[in-house]
Amino acid sequence: MLKQDSRILIVGLGLIGGSYAEGLTKAGFEVGAVTRSQESIDFALSKGIIASGTTEVTREYVSRFDIIVFALYPHVFLSWIENYQDYIKPGALLTDVTGVKRSVVYKVQEMLRDDLEFVGAHPMAGRELYGVRNADCSVFKGANYIVTPTGANTEGAVVTCEDLGRALGFGCISRLSPEEHDEMIGFLSQLTHCIAVALMNSKESRHLAEFTGDSFRDLTRIARINDGMWSELFLLNRDELLSQMDLFIGKFGELRDALAAGDMDKMREMMRISTERRSYFDRK
Amino acid sequence: MLKQDSRILIVGLGLIGGSYAEGLTKAGFEVGAVTRSQESIDFALSKGIIASGTTEVTREYVSRFDIIVFALYPHVFLSWIENYQDYIKPGALLTDVTGVKRSVVYKVQEMLRDDLEFVGAHPMAGRELYGVRNADCSVFKGANYIVTPTGANTEGAVVTCEDLGRALGFGCISRLSPEEHDEMIGFLSQLTHCIAVALMNSKESRHLAEFTGDSFRDLTRIARINDGMWSELFLLNRDELLSQMDLFIGKFGELRDALAAGDMDKMREMMRISTERRSYFDRK
Repeated sequence: MLKQDSRILIVGLGLIGGSYAEGLTKAGFEVGAVTRSQESIDFALSKGIIASGTTEVTREYVSRFDIIVFALYPHVFLSWIENYQDYIKPGALLTDVTGVKRSVVYKVQEMLRDDLEFVGAHPMAGRELYGVRNADCSVFKGANYIVTPTGANTEGAVVTCEDLGRALGFGCISRLSPEEHDEMIGFLSQLTHCIAVALMNSKESRHLAEFTGDSFRDLTRIARINDGMWSELFLLNRDELLSQMDLFIGKFGELRDALAAGDMDKMREMMRISTERRSYFDRK
Repeated sequence: MLKQDSRILIVGLGLIGGSYAEGLTKAGFEVGAVTRSQESIDFALSKGIIASGTTEVTREYVSRFDIIVFALYPHVFLSWIENYQDYIKPGALLTDVTGVKRSVVYKVQEMLRDDLEFVGAHPMAGRELYGVRNADCSVFKGANYIVTPTGANTEGAVVTCEDLGRALGFGCISRLSPEEHDEMIGFLSQLTHCIAVALMNSKESRHLAEFTGDSFRDLTRIARINDGMWSELFLLNRDELLSQMDLFIGKFGELRDALAAGDMDKMREMMRISTERRSYFDRK
């Protein structure tokens, strides 16, 4: 259970870390922050979304916190644990916001001191903007928050982590294994980003812009992508994403060959399957 | 120029034909309709969006009209011209709403009597619904209306056809050759529909529905597709669409291979290109 007097440290005060800070401060928690840029700290202090913050990782500061949320690029997250986990208060709960789980959760749990516990979490919300200046905890309202416990976790810590999601206002809080999470995120998010990127790379399309309707805009909205972040996330889910890309290539090829052969029945069958399956995703 | 006393006949009173009827009646024209179902005629009469209508194609009725708009499936359109063009008043202007042009416009112009003129047009608007009961001319507001003249057309007829788009309230009226139109529609519409269909066919995804966010919903909205209509439109733009599908397969394969090889630089380069090109499509 999440105690109301818990002190919560955000490591990495970017868009998501900043939104966590804002939401948890509003929910009445004492929130601190460690991040690289003093400007981000100053901004967050001036907005009142953190109670304290520092760019220097010290034992004195870090050891004050009961819960630590890591909102870092995955490789930075792993090296932070390696370098600074000695500073963390015994019994503290660690969690994160990383968009891939299998390649992160087990590694962190393996590296971690025995008196600390890490529960992976993925807040499925965001904006196509960066930095604490764009932080906005209202993006969590109604969104999905997924906790990915493993055999190394205790029920108490998992519930505390779920409570954190509730305190932030998420609409739907679920548990998935890291493997189930990565299959889901591979299909619903990474594969669709790959498609949008490949589509925009297919053609120099400036001359077509004036004719664009909503469906093309909707489909390619996610073609605007943070290349550093997403290439890292793709690589951390490589096997799962590759197998899903291959499934897609296979089906796209089937449709292409049906068109080449003038096979109306096959094309229509695929369209009927797609229409039926799309109905699963209607907003309830 | 479009004369205000022109009598306009809509052939095919479905979603688009009905929306034309509504818009042109509101703009003060006398609008008639020929369609297969008496129920559609009755509905349109009761709503006051046509002045008259019939399910029987007769010389007496058809010959009353100065302008005829064909809102039919492409193969039905071609056979209508073949069977009934003798009934049309000499000097009448014919136009259409078909979503592909190269394979339709030249054929109709070749079949047509010398004293008639056909100017192809494509109103780029619609709803994911069918039938005159869902007709709504407000979908044209601000949308693109494309006229596809050929060497067989006179400037006067092309301008009249453009005036029709203006009378319907379209926001942007352009001219493209049938070839330019089909390249554009292949990329912006048909290819994206192929992608959405193939994606939904890739995986039985019911178990993932509860985790779906906006980007997957936006990308797959067009996976709900009228299989009869779209398979026909794909086939009528087969060569162009196949070449675009192959471009996309090539780029998607490049991204896949970069991921398999762990080639971050290549992935990031493709993401940067996609981000840059997507900016062409921002709403102005």
